[in-house]
Amino acid sequence: MTLEKLMGEMIVCFRKYAGSDGNSGTLSQQELSEMAKKEFPTLCQSPKKDEILKEIFTQMDRDKSNTIDFKEFMIFLTCMTMALEDCCK
Amino acid sequence: MTLEKLMGEMIVCFRKYAGSDGNSGTLSQQELSEMAKKEFPTLCQSPKKDEILKEIFTQMDRDKSNTIDFKEFMIFLTCMTMALEDCCK
Repeated sequence: MTLEKLMGEMIVCFRKYAGSDGNSGTLSQQELSEMAKKEFPTLCQSPKKDEILKEIFTQMDRDKSNTIDFKEFMIFLTCMTMALEDCCK
Repeated sequence: MTLEKLMGEMIVCFRKYAGSDGNSGTLSQQELSEMAKKEFPTLCQSPKKDEILKEIFTQMDRDKSNTIDFKEFMIFLTCMTMALEDCCK
């Protein structure tokens, strides 16, 4: 898969979960949890996953709007990818 | 493909091109051009692609080290994805 397609996949994925409540522009706490369970199965193996997901939502919601917009989602994904890359050195 | 796997794909892709010159930690101008041609085929259809790629390299190289590290690569990819998402509204 090309990077061009990977970028498209990230947009499609965000909109898929963000659209559950009819508003496809933002992720609610519930939608983020749903995304995490399906998209980050390794993270969600933790018995503390509910606690972790609540903390992640708070961290992601940089403007404290109680929802995650696409920019906040991408910033989080970038930070996660950089942390993962650092682990794989 | 899950987001977890997409993140891994981005790391693999960066290292694949960054490793051409034996140093897999950074992309040179030449390596970036190679990546762009393979990974952004739509962008590279432009007859001005060489000019555009030179400008992109300068923009990506935030610390002016004349190479692109993984962080710079991810910042660029994030900006591109946000711009793409904005176009698809």
